[in-house]
Amino acid sequence: MKVSVTRRAHFNAAHRLHNPAWSDEKNREVFGLCNSPNFHGHNYELEVRVTGEIDPETGMVVDLGWLAQLIKREIELRFDHKNLNLDTAEFQSLIPTAENICLIVWRILRGHLPEKFELHIRLYETPRNFVEIG
Amino acid sequence: MKVSVTRRAHFNAAHRLHNPAWSDEKNREVFGLCNSPNFHGHNYELEVRVTGEIDPETGMVVDLGWLAQLIKREIELRFDHKNLNLDTAEFQSLIPTAENICLIVWRILRGHLPEKFELHIRLYETPRNFVEIG
Amino acid sequence: MKVSVTRRAHFNAAHRLHNPAWSDEKNREVFGLCNSPNFHGHNYELEVRVTGEIDPETGMVVDLGWLAQLIKREIELRFDHKNLNLDTAEFQSLIPTAENICLIVWRILRGHLPEKFELHIRLYETPRNFVEIG
Amino acid sequence: MKVSVTRRAHFNAAHRLHNPAWSDEKNREVFGLCNSPNFHGHNYELEVRVTGEIDPETGMVVDLGWLAQLIKREIELRFDHKNLNLDTAEFQSLIPTAENICLIVWRILRGHLPEKFELHIRLYETPRNFVEIG
Amino acid sequence: MKVSVTRRAHFNAAHRLHNPAWSDEKNREVFGLCNSPNFHGHNYELEVRVTGEIDPETGMVVDLGWLAQLIKREIELRFDHKNLNLDTAEFQSLIPTAENICLIVWRILRGHLPEKFELHIRLYETPRNFVEIG
Amino acid sequence: MKVSVTRRAHFNAAHRLHNPAWSDEKNREVFGLCNSPNFHGHNYELEVRVTGEIDPETGMVVDLGWLAQLIKREIELRFDHKNLNLDTAEFQSLIPTAENICLIVWRILRGHLPEKFELHIRLYETPRNFVEIG
Repeated sequence: MKVSVTRRAHFNAAHRLHNPAWSDEKNREVFGLCNSPNFHGHNYELEVRVTGEIDPETGMVVDLGWLAQLIKREIELRFDHKNLNLDTAEFQSLIPTAENICLIVWRILRGHLPEKFELHIRLYETPRNFVEIG
Repeated sequence: MKVSVTRRAHFNAAHRLHNPAWSDEKNREVFGLCNSPNFHGHNYELEVRVTGEIDPETGMVVDLGWLAQLIKREIELRFDHKNLNLDTAEFQSLIPTAENICLIVWRILRGHLPEKFELHIRLYETPRNFVEIG
Repeated sequence: MKVSVTRRAHFNAAHRLHNPAWSDEKNREVFGLCNSPNFHGHNYELEVRVTGEIDPETGMVVDLGWLAQLIKREIELRFDHKNLNLDTAEFQSLIPTAENICLIVWRILRGHLPEKFELHIRLYETPRNFVEIG
Repeated sequence: MKVSVTRRAHFNAAHRLHNPAWSDEKNREVFGLCNSPNFHGHNYELEVRVTGEIDPETGMVVDLGWLAQLIKREIELRFDHKNLNLDTAEFQSLIPTAENICLIVWRILRGHLPEKFELHIRLYETPRNFVEIG
Repeated sequence: MKVSVTRRAHFNAAHRLHNPAWSDEKNREVFGLCNSPNFHGHNYELEVRVTGEIDPETGMVVDLGWLAQLIKREIELRFDHKNLNLDTAEFQSLIPTAENICLIVWRILRGHLPEKFELHIRLYETPRNFVEIG
Repeated sequence: MKVSVTRRAHFNAAHRLHNPAWSDEKNREVFGLCNSPNFHGHNYELEVRVTGEIDPETGMVVDLGWLAQLIKREIELRFDHKNLNLDTAEFQSLIPTAENICLIVWRILRGHLPEKFELHIRLYETPRNFVEIG
């Protein structure tokens, strides 16, 4: 029987939504306030859900300590207290919408998780908006 | 890859659970306090989840500003600060349980959402009870 | 040293803000949507805070079981699943704003609490608005 | 159309993660602080989700009063204010991880729920960690 | 009898903690990650508490619609989706710590609130850190 | 002008309420389920509020990094994943009610905080009950 385990984490970052292929006018029209030239920011709250079978010896699906370290090393250290547009390799040519941040988080963690596990990511950009993948 | 985006909204309304085909006694037995004759009410918290593919030009699944306006126009204006039994067309002959309100919200929004998107609605009647459809 | 203990409770009720001494027009102007003629409603979340000294024999300021029963008997039974305007003696001639409901809750509980305790009431009308007395 | 209804409940319990087939050293290595010999504890928050069709006569999927009583009788009375390792039959030879507690809750409630309903359990061990089954 | 009414609001902004009178090294030592050169950001959640007497005609301490508009005009329009260091007059020579933002919010709103009311501001920089004034 | 800064922390612990000077019967009568012989437990959520003046050089009342380390070293290491009755010096002869735990936390932190600061502690035993001192 499949069991899912979810761990919460968080990081604070600045970003700006801007498509360089468009005029300033079109950017403002599509992205509204999120296109503000000098950036704004969010407390991103992250839920990492790993699904698999319970190991009968440990009673656990995955070692939560290992998972928490993985999230810290691969996500928090990379994005926390950063400007996503200026400071990270991932968003040099990718617009840092919540959708794209969630996708990048999914891809990074997927690459470090054994294949037998399913992975689902939920990312809150604000307490009122969130995005899910997986 | 499918991505889901969720937007929260809310409305405050009065309602009463009552099946006119039944005796008063049976109504009290089935609906308990929710059958109180002069209505009671709730802060309904709504989560509207739209699932689709990320548009590579915008980095977004759906324009959240458009979605927020749709929810405001079609749901909040219709139900906020209303008596669901007396003031709305939808619950003239449909009992306004959380299940039925959730179903009506799903049907209304489904009718305004492009077919390529999936739609899921979660409705909190109280912080301790919620209903989901889609 | 003074210690405060808080217990949460909740009740769901319908209400309408309306001053019968005013014209309908003035009522709509002052109370807006809250003046809707057929009532609307809320999940009222209540925090009852009792302040006193720790009893060295029990390690407690007040017996929380006793306090929970008091709130249930005096507040929840009186207001839960009620229409505050139509079903309660307290709001026959008092407008059931959050401020007045909070004041009534404070007065009722104050009358049942030993004098040595201070009493503070916080009432959430919605997750975004709350009122405090005491 | 399928509709899900969720009810929240909670219980407070002590537990210890320990596999008697292992050395003390291996237990400490695998379970860390959760292996503390004299137990620690949690406020377990439970979400019980029942999925089925809306009964057109009641407008409800399941009678929430019946469901709340079932959870109280079968889960809260069994586990609330208990030491899961010492006081319960279920965890005599099963390690009380969140995964296993969630599985046991699922099995107990599944046995009392009509077959036509699907059942999903979410169990929060802390506000930052939760487990899901079903 | 004094009654307090609280209204919640929010804004998203970027900021950087940096004292130009200090060396870069001292700035990093004192402000840590919050000194990141390209800014980071937060979802600031604001609670504005106004204390006064209940007006017997309206049953209200203050018109919440008026208060919500005041917060929108004076705080949200000024700070939402802005870079506090670069885009606002208030933080040209004042370090935008949560303490200083809270103080500025208090001063701005105090200037628009009738003298008979007391004002208290709570500002959440993250769900885990908040600041209060008044 | 006085400004308050609050930092959240948490620890998970087991406890039992029992006064050895009383009969078993009286203990059960006064403490109810909290007197269960084999302990139960809670996720204790802690809010540490420090009040003082803003340092004009840093824009801060107190270094939150320093405060977080202090709470970790003096409170979390002492109480997290412990049995309060069996594993801690503080509750050898003091009943570990929420009131007494809150008092002990206040006394420990007060002893490490410069005198110019005021200190207030809020301790959640469950999401529905909390205690405050200071």
